[in-house]
Amino acid sequence: MARSGRLSSPGDQRESGRQQILDVIRAAESIARIDIAKATGVSPATVTAITAELLAAGLIEEIAPEITPEARRGRPRVALKIRGAAHRIAGLKVSHHVVSTVITDFVGEELASHEMPLIKGTMPVAEFCTQIRRALEFTCKKGSFTIDDLSGIGLGVAGMVDAERSFVYWSSSLEARNVDLGAALAEVLPCPIFMDNDANLVAKAEHLFGEGRTCDNFIVITIEHGVGMGIVIDGQIYRGTRGCGAEFGHTKVHLEGALCQCGQRGCLEAYVGDYALLREANISSGSERHTSVAALFGAAENGDKMAKSILDRARRMFAMGLANVVNIFDPTKIILSGARLSFDHLYSDKVIEEMRQWVVQVDAPLPEVIVHDWGDLMWAKGAAAYGIEEVTSRTVKELANASV
Amino acid sequence: MARSGRLSSPGDQRESGRQQILDVIRAAESIARIDIAKATGVSPATVTAITAELLAAGLIEEIAPEITPEARRGRPRVALKIRGAAHRIAGLKVSHHVVSTVITDFVGEELASHEMPLIKGTMPVAEFCTQIRRALEFTCKKGSFTIDDLSGIGLGVAGMVDAERSFVYWSSSLEARNVDLGAALAEVLPCPIFMDNDANLVAKAEHLFGEGRTCDNFIVITIEHGVGMGIVIDGQIYRGTRGCGAEFGHTKVHLEGALCQCGQRGCLEAYVGDYALLREANISSGSERHTSVAALFGAAENGDKMAKSILDRARRMFAMGLANVVNIFDPTKIILSGARLSFDHLYSDKVIEEMRQWVVQVDAPLPEVIVHDWGDLMWAKGAAAYGIEEVTSRTVKELANASV
Repeated sequence: MARSGRLSSPGDQRESGRQQILDVIRAAESIARIDIAKATGVSPATVTAITAELLAAGLIEEIAPEITPEARRGRPRVALKIRGAAHRIAGLKVSHHVVSTVITDFVGEELASHEMPLIKGTMPVAEFCTQIRRALEFTCKKGSFTIDDLSGIGLGVAGMVDAERSFVYWSSSLEARNVDLGAALAEVLPCPIFMDNDANLVAKAEHLFGEGRTCDNFIVITIEHGVGMGIVIDGQIYRGTRGCGAEFGHTKVHLEGALCQCGQRGCLEAYVGDYALLREANISSGSERHTSVAALFGAAENGDKMAKSILDRARRMFAMGLANVVNIFDPTKIILSGARLSFDHLYSDKVIEEMRQWVVQVDAPLPEVIVHDWGDLMWAKGAAAYGIEEVTSRTVKELANASV
Repeated sequence: MARSGRLSSPGDQRESGRQQILDVIRAAESIARIDIAKATGVSPATVTAITAELLAAGLIEEIAPEITPEARRGRPRVALKIRGAAHRIAGLKVSHHVVSTVITDFVGEELASHEMPLIKGTMPVAEFCTQIRRALEFTCKKGSFTIDDLSGIGLGVAGMVDAERSFVYWSSSLEARNVDLGAALAEVLPCPIFMDNDANLVAKAEHLFGEGRTCDNFIVITIEHGVGMGIVIDGQIYRGTRGCGAEFGHTKVHLEGALCQCGQRGCLEAYVGDYALLREANISSGSERHTSVAALFGAAENGDKMAKSILDRARRMFAMGLANVVNIFDPTKIILSGARLSFDHLYSDKVIEEMRQWVVQVDAPLPEVIVHDWGDLMWAKGAAAYGIEEVTSRTVKELANASV
């Protein structure tokens, strides 16, 4: 009982046809026109017209048909594919210590990549913009082209990002709050930039290249300096109304509990984040001697009771948070995605075991939990995929305007 | 970058056209053929063919055009509407004390309603089925027709329900777990029954008739014997993969906390449910004298410190749970829907005030929180709406099969 019919003009239909056909070609890697018509329900005549337009615009190309013995009898079918050379797209992921950059062609093939260390994790806006430009210039140089050769840039930022407005409410990478980061970056970059919360882009990368490939409803939890979440529902990133949903790290796990870096009490991050673990260790020992989670970890393994107690509680709080995610979303899969050895205590079988005890018990298999040990470059690839998507949709809009 | 094109045959397209056209007519109440074509993008010729078929099947009817002075010049347009007499649909909501039933026509106009008290809240499956049949017979009698005149029944049940399979993992209304309730009810009922978690049907009712009318992304929280949640994303009920998501009442708000009726510890329900409040009051006073939440409430208002402390904690735990929902979903609206006076402490301004303090603070307005004091009959209307939807989609499928 949907309550309203979508109004769509013939122009809208043509535009959505272009997008749909490009999506089908991208998904299939290579596909004949007649199969595009079958897959989309668009009439063969319209498919021919639209693909002619996409060929003329240089977005797709024809490839010579493979002559198989079966095919030899009929007329060989020409297949279409995305034209890699159509665009160069960059993807960046900014963490506290490094800017990871990857540049791909329009198909998504990697052309160059680079990891640029950061001295300061939290920066003024102007410096942040400078570092992004530097990272891009370095990576382009590696690929023997220049920053002016890029058609679009995808950027993953930690924190609360309104992707639609390219607006950052808060990020641990920026000193200021409520930053129109899109506008600031536009001043130093030669092409459009599309940004999102970094965990959302990990979710996108998992969906396109990783553990979420076969799955349209899953949750990605990322553990780095903070705890992030990306939600994929029906194959789409769920962002919330104001672009600041999925704040898993700031869900409260204890009424009036431990103080969080966000200023509130009882957030999950305030129990499992590295700063939280070190803070507790230093308070308990009455010193400032604990400065590394790895060392705290080592101490626990060597039988230090205090260290063990701190890590045990973190593990249990994290399991409880995961169980809450299952109780609310009931996803097919939960992917714990990240690369930090220091968070092994959160990736252990024990966490998953405890989570299983705390989810609502029904006579049906529990969601699969997968630990996926990815490097930051894979996050950057997710950002590049986002850039490809946005550049595609802009190009489709431009074609629509040109044909009006 | 969608990864697969949907395969759709001309038959599929015809079926989705029928559904789309019925949806548009239902939404518009009455609409001319040419406006259906505009609203759906379906060609006028196809609209004419499909509406002829729907008229012949008795699902829609023509209504005489109103002759306005403006319209007098052209040919008057005949409008189409859903034919109320096409089907009679029942909606039921089973709570711990009462079975609420409403019967509507195919338009959704109420024909009869009835509230049948229940002596036992938790029943064997056979008795549950008998009570459902009794409630339906009573209500049909009031409307001067019989149970055999019904085309379909929507049913809201508390607990974990896999709507697709009509399977109940657990419900406070049933003694057994893992019940194929659809099959059991089919044996005593003359027409198809469609069931869902009751909070989902409240969410549907809010979307169709209530506070969610103007809104496609909202959360409904229901407070009755337990705490329920319905999630509406992009206008659709979100059910989770196994049909047991949205278990807000069983999200953990305290590690190894209070014991819940589900057998686990630290669930929100174990702090805010009526049984939880009375249990704490009786433990604290070392007696069994507390048997009503209303009395506990009265005591708190008269200055009883213990009662006040119990209700205060419940309120704060509930606010924390709500803040977590905002932090994860970032919805446009949260609707607190229910009719129980005994839960006033959870509906207070103070809860909303505390929730506001505990959500992630960004420079954007918070979701609206609305308290909606609805009776159980409105929940039953949501169940009827679900029945109408399902009967419509079955009828569309039958037309498709008939035309193959």
